[in-house]
Amino acid sequence: MTGSVSLVGAGPGDPELLTVKAVRRLEEADLVLYDALVDTAALRHAARARRFFVGKRAGRPAIRQDAINRLMVREARRGHKVVRLKCGDPFVFGRGGEEALALAAAGIPCEVVPGISSAIAAPLLAGIPVTHRGLASAFIVLSGHAESAYGPVLRSLAPGSATIVVLMGIANRAAIVDQLRASGWAAQTPAAVLFGASHPGAEEWHGTRGSLAVRDAVEDSGLPGVIVVGAVAALAGLLSTQDAVRPAEAERRSLSGI
Amino acid sequence: MTGSVSLVGAGPGDPELLTVKAVRRLEEADLVLYDALVDTAALRHAARARRFFVGKRAGRPAIRQDAINRLMVREARRGHKVVRLKCGDPFVFGRGGEEALALAAAGIPCEVVPGISSAIAAPLLAGIPVTHRGLASAFIVLSGHAESAYGPVLRSLAPGSATIVVLMGIANRAAIVDQLRASGWAAQTPAAVLFGASHPGAEEWHGTRGSLAVRDAVEDSGLPGVIVVGAVAALAGLLSTQDAVRPAEAERRSLSGI
Repeated sequence: MTGSVSLVGAGPGDPELLTVKAVRRLEEADLVLYDALVDTAALRHAARARRFFVGKRAGRPAIRQDAINRLMVREARRGHKVVRLKCGDPFVFGRGGEEALALAAAGIPCEVVPGISSAIAAPLLAGIPVTHRGLASAFIVLSGHAESAYGPVLRSLAPGSATIVVLMGIANRAAIVDQLRASGWAAQTPAAVLFGASHPGAEEWHGTRGSLAVRDAVEDSGLPGVIVVGAVAALAGLLSTQDAVRPAEAERRSLSGI
Repeated sequence: MTGSVSLVGAGPGDPELLTVKAVRRLEEADLVLYDALVDTAALRHAARARRFFVGKRAGRPAIRQDAINRLMVREARRGHKVVRLKCGDPFVFGRGGEEALALAAAGIPCEVVPGISSAIAAPLLAGIPVTHRGLASAFIVLSGHAESAYGPVLRSLAPGSATIVVLMGIANRAAIVDQLRASGWAAQTPAAVLFGASHPGAEEWHGTRGSLAVRDAVEDSGLPGVIVVGAVAALAGLLSTQDAVRPAEAERRSLSGI
């Protein structure tokens, strides 16, 4: 009997932000293929499964995408329940769609379990709502890894018309800020950079579109950074969204610079 | 001793898409204030809590926003653990930011627990990744409830530069489509409308930007509808994301028209 593959979103890192369904799929799994940024505590739910790391180390994939696809197909054909545990949401960047297509082409039963995306949760955990009445009734999520990805959107989007959330954009931060300036986004537009959201070592930087690219980047922190630009970023100082769990100020270290 | 308020995202409806943290907050709660679209199965976790419906019925709020805010403050001051259970994610529309501000102003400890947003999960559950290499490296989420909300974005956004996801836009569908046409979005751009994602009665419509506004709307279905416009919408036919859980075709009823 053919097994199956579940592409499961692990959320931003905190194992408590796994969904109930994700926990169940891990508990039932025979094999778990997991990414670099998944908190290893999540893997404890997969006590009876073999577990393989298939993410990136130092920016380079441990295993090629086509090899991951072949591995999933082979293991499912052997009758195994495979969980492909992906950071955040499986369909927000990260090639989840490609993996699902490969499985469909091979005739393997495939399920996709949504996860909490850091595109929304990283701002939230820093007290920034991506939408807020009177400030933003839209938000846009972009990949900052290449100009071809963020250029067409940032060249066209009317200044202030949406909250901008950039994933994988720390390295290209200066170019992204240049594009925003060229498109008419005001220098004083509030901005924030959120590193390692929901991880114990999370750090935040708060400033403006104008100050966003001034300081040298902390690119070797090892934590993924989410850039937010828009009026809502100014709400971070007013909203302490984690008060009930931990003292807000103690953990909201402001970086000396990014 | 002062209690606390947790603004908790309940996800798109399926109680298995609650996070582990959401379940724990419900189990610990003394009082739960919940919205209309939250699956009542989620409330079973709050066995020891008083539970009040504070959402909308037939489009009208059962209770005013300022009354909800006052109720949360009063109950927290009485030492209670209050859970404000909100559909989807607390900070994607739905006034979560306003509620958090009101609690901060009153000095009430407040925590926000992110939830799965239907903006990403509704497309996902229909086999549509909001991003996909070669098709979309950005997605934008808008409120379709008023021209002032969606107009500025849709007037400026370059055709094809991002997947468009519109929440609360079924009633204004024709005006939204008109704006997309005026902005140069091709008539044959794939589009979909997803009603009641993750609910047992979920329905899907698949077509194009051009056909999106042709038929009469099913506005009395009672299920919220998510509109998706962009090349990724064409992947729905290739990806059966729920195969492992349920037979894909049996439940993917295509509406005769919207």
